[in-house]
Amino acid sequence: MTGKIRAEFGPGGEVAFVDPETLVVEAAALAGVELQTPCGGKGKCGQCRVVTAGDGLTPPDEVEVSSLSEEDLAKGVRLSCRARIVGPTQITIPAGSRITTSTILETGLVDGVPAQPNVRRAELALPKPALGDQRADLRRITAGLGAGLAGCEADLDLLRELPERLRESDFAPVAVTIGNRLVDIRGAGGIPQAYGCAVDIGTTTVVAYVVELESGHVVGTGSAPNPQGAHGADVVSRVEFADQTADGLQTLHEESVGIVNRVIAEACGEADVSPRDVYEVTVVGNTCMAHLFLGLNPHYVARAPYIPVVDQPLRVSAAELGVRVNPRGEVYVLPNVAGWVGADTVGVVLSTRLRESEGPTLAIDIGTNGEVMLWSGERLLVCSTAAGPAFEGAQIRHGMRAAAGAIDHVRATEDGIAFRTIGNQPAVGICGSGLLDAVARMLDLGVINPTGLMVDEAGAAQLPPAIASRIAGKDQDRHFVLATVRESGLDEPIILTQRDVRQLQLAKGAIRAGIEVLLAETGLRPADLERILLAGAFGSYIDRVSAVRIGLVPSLPLAQIIAVGNAAGAGAVMALASTSEREKATQLAEAANHVELSSRPDFQMLFMETMLFQSG
Amino acid sequence: MTGKIRAEFGPGGEVAFVDPETLVVEAAALAGVELQTPCGGKGKCGQCRVVTAGDGLTPPDEVEVSSLSEEDLAKGVRLSCRARIVGPTQITIPAGSRITTSTILETGLVDGVPAQPNVRRAELALPKPALGDQRADLRRITAGLGAGLAGCEADLDLLRELPERLRESDFAPVAVTIGNRLVDIRGAGGIPQAYGCAVDIGTTTVVAYVVELESGHVVGTGSAPNPQGAHGADVVSRVEFADQTADGLQTLHEESVGIVNRVIAEACGEADVSPRDVYEVTVVGNTCMAHLFLGLNPHYVARAPYIPVVDQPLRVSAAELGVRVNPRGEVYVLPNVAGWVGADTVGVVLSTRLRESEGPTLAIDIGTNGEVMLWSGERLLVCSTAAGPAFEGAQIRHGMRAAAGAIDHVRATEDGIAFRTIGNQPAVGICGSGLLDAVARMLDLGVINPTGLMVDEAGAAQLPPAIASRIAGKDQDRHFVLATVRESGLDEPIILTQRDVRQLQLAKGAIRAGIEVLLAETGLRPADLERILLAGAFGSYIDRVSAVRIGLVPSLPLAQIIAVGNAAGAGAVMALASTSEREKATQLAEAANHVELSSRPDFQMLFMETMLFQSG
Repeated sequence: MTGKIRAEFGPGGEVAFVDPETLVVEAAALAGVELQTPCGGKGKCGQCRVVTAGDGLTPPDEVEVSSLSEEDLAKGVRLSCRARIVGPTQITIPAGSRITTSTILETGLVDGVPAQPNVRRAELALPKPALGDQRADLRRITAGLGAGLAGCEADLDLLRELPERLRESDFAPVAVTIGNRLVDIRGAGGIPQAYGCAVDIGTTTVVAYVVELESGHVVGTGSAPNPQGAHGADVVSRVEFADQTADGLQTLHEESVGIVNRVIAEACGEADVSPRDVYEVTVVGNTCMAHLFLGLNPHYVARAPYIPVVDQPLRVSAAELGVRVNPRGEVYVLPNVAGWVGADTVGVVLSTRLRESEGPTLAIDIGTNGEVMLWSGERLLVCSTAAGPAFEGAQIRHGMRAAAGAIDHVRATEDGIAFRTIGNQPAVGICGSGLLDAVARMLDLGVINPTGLMVDEAGAAQLPPAIASRIAGKDQDRHFVLATVRESGLDEPIILTQRDVRQLQLAKGAIRAGIEVLLAETGLRPADLERILLAGAFGSYIDRVSAVRIGLVPSLPLAQIIAVGNAAGAGAVMALASTSEREKATQLAEAANHVELSSRPDFQMLFMETMLFQSG
Repeated sequence: MTGKIRAEFGPGGEVAFVDPETLVVEAAALAGVELQTPCGGKGKCGQCRVVTAGDGLTPPDEVEVSSLSEEDLAKGVRLSCRARIVGPTQITIPAGSRITTSTILETGLVDGVPAQPNVRRAELALPKPALGDQRADLRRITAGLGAGLAGCEADLDLLRELPERLRESDFAPVAVTIGNRLVDIRGAGGIPQAYGCAVDIGTTTVVAYVVELESGHVVGTGSAPNPQGAHGADVVSRVEFADQTADGLQTLHEESVGIVNRVIAEACGEADVSPRDVYEVTVVGNTCMAHLFLGLNPHYVARAPYIPVVDQPLRVSAAELGVRVNPRGEVYVLPNVAGWVGADTVGVVLSTRLRESEGPTLAIDIGTNGEVMLWSGERLLVCSTAAGPAFEGAQIRHGMRAAAGAIDHVRATEDGIAFRTIGNQPAVGICGSGLLDAVARMLDLGVINPTGLMVDEAGAAQLPPAIASRIAGKDQDRHFVLATVRESGLDEPIILTQRDVRQLQLAKGAIRAGIEVLLAETGLRPADLERILLAGAFGSYIDRVSAVRIGLVPSLPLAQIIAVGNAAGAGAVMALASTSEREKATQLAEAANHVELSSRPDFQMLFMETMLFQSG
């Protein structure tokens, strides 16, 4: 670590030790702080401003001088995509320059998207009936709702209550519409706000966001593990459960609706919102999860040629589905692209504005399956890769989910390696991000070579003793000790075996091969990419240096590799808060060119190559 | 009857005795045969052709000579709106010239309206899924259905069965859509035909027509009395029952749905159609009947200012409503115009093409309420008049429904009067058409004067003895004997009292006042009318000479007063068989100018005048 320079970032106090001449934006990334760089670091947009004092940075270059005012320059304002670190420095990052991965938890919307919900609440003051004004009750109400809702319809059960409710309110009711349907009418003050819920049904975790629809703000969240996990960690094993168990599909369906109800209730509880005031629920999830939620048989989704029952967006009565919100509420399931490219991917494309990016941009959502999205500047391509569960810690000797005690970060030290665990608990295993780091460090240290093979006895002998002493075993069980018995919270050391390394190679190879296929489809090279977006929890937690090191993603400057958080869930929130966004999601699903990897003759060849550990 | 000429009409053999120079079309009308006269008897359209032999008619005039070919003229073809009867004659009426009041029972559609049903059945042969064709099941099907249905949706319960049904059919299924919804999919040969039902819910009688949707043909009918009659013959007493009885509304609702199911089952039985193959049901009825059918509270419909819950067309799930057709079928209730101007009136306007008439045309649907529709040539006006139940035989001393034994026709003879009964059974009462005839004859005979007052002793003494001997009693019980004890099937003579005459005056005055108000609104005089259409059973049965004689309808030549049968039911059939007609019905309901008689200061004055018996 000699020769590194300390850079501290305010107001959070994050620190990074960087090489001289490192760009501020990259240093910030190393410190775990994401900066806005809409122009891709070209110094064009001026949105990555930071403020510094002292002489730790290079002097302003011509781009900064032309982009920033003299006043700003005098105050120490700099562009983090231009300024480089040359000495110890403290840098303050204004809120506007910072990307927070939990943005959707606070605002629910990408900046600049106005709330335009499908659910509308209106306080009406209607003229009373008279011989000169004999309009029907419904027409009187819909006329009061304005021109856009003049043809509004209503369910029979509400129509049956309409005359009394209207007169009890003395013709001054509060009305709620969903799209073109009148769904509720109560006396003045009866419905203080109309809410919606956006739900992301992950294979592993289910998350709900409660949104105040008038503002589009997220006001509460809830999350819980998907109880279907008891029938198999991955999608295929759940489909097998549905196929082979009596009432298996029904069981999975009920579990899905049940957990959705639970996270909605939790989110509502956090926001002190009555589920009765929730009128719409938007849902994203992979195609199989969405099918199970709807009670649709995913049998043909999981088997070649991978045919979903439906790919278009679905509107379903919440009551029919058993979703416990307002009984006249609706559930809107976003469209999927294909059997293995689901509404969650559509949500990512929507919320990241992928298709509106200026230059070629790649987005990756890594889970049990890795969905890869490429915007070439002209076309939107998507594919799904069977990464397998290695990134979630499964099928790894000491693998585990990202939970307390999991090794989630491994770094090199002067005399070997050091690790960090989640919650600073005694180490009990290793999660995906830790696995990535560990393999990257093992490559750096020469413990494995680029083919993934662990050094033999002779090779180990040439390594520093602190490293060599960590290597033992034979063949597939040959391993590297991450945590010695003394460091471990278990009765044994925590190790990474040759087999584990191979599992990681398969996983990262699958994803990288998907990336390469999409690039090849468009004639682009990795270096042509202006940006890589990492979606999902895994994408937020992994160390991007390690990801590049093992070749999981193309080698771009770190500032151009950006974690975007739960972008799928953000897409669900946007589709909830804005009908324009909802329509855009449908257009995106239609516009996306799905590349079926299994039908491509070049895929296996690429896969073989991309399993190698090489960055580029 | 001296000086009258005998005219016989083929092929039915109907006979009329007419004055010399009577137009053939009027003679036919007197014989009970309706002829097509689309141009209103101007000799323009040539559609009222008849064929005659011999010299019983005036020679062809210039209009006939220019309108008919020489060949036709040589064959004896004539225009019945031009040729007049001058001597005994036999006239043959081609089928094309005849209007049959049961037309809708045979074809279901006004001539020239192509079937364009909302329900479509399609036999598909779809490409099978492959890695190169990964379309979702629903998209594969909707693509097969063609461009218009590309965005077709499907209910969740069908989607849940879709994958297996599609594969069981080996991707060659039969599909049924309702509008933009896929509602059924079965193996080849699974659905030989798609059917619909048109239902007319009358206050008194409920009728269903089964329609083969591909052709638009009515293939079966069913009818039954409305069981709600047990709670009151008229609409207001049923609304009172709903208001004042525990579960009254629910009882009426269930009775309505029950009777609709019964007539649908009867109609299906007649046509040998499974109700499962019936996918759509269109419904007309007055606003109150439609509300009760839907379970909507008619409380405010029946009370000033007469506000319906809804006036726009309603689509409701058949299953939700309890209508026993295909479980995914739909019920479509046509729009109403106002609280007392219902979907039945819209059906009449639709099927009679009232708004497309060349000149000013009046349509009247007489029941417990009389709906009056006037097309001025520019505007469509409608009103509802409270005729009361006199025309249905209620509140008349010997009044009864049009059933076996009812006196339905009364004519003058040389020595008094003669009557006819339904089914030639012994007379047990008098129905509406008989009442109309009887009063008209009493006017002719001088038994009552134009104010409706029956002659006193002195006046009676001046009448022929055969007539005078039929008059007896005092004040409101003063009466005229229609059937003597000898002629009666009862133990007493069948009489018409002064009070009965007053009831008829109130009924006919209400309707005529409605007609006069609409005429006044448009600045038209009765003589400006080119045609009067009489809808409904009553309109079909009444003697038009009597109707004109008592002033129920304006005095037009008989050929211009046309019975159009169950025009409301015909409208329901048309809306079932053609979406264009359905849209037109909605446009008509929107375009109709409802005139609320009770809000008009001139109505009572007009009513007083129109209660008098005077034709004009």
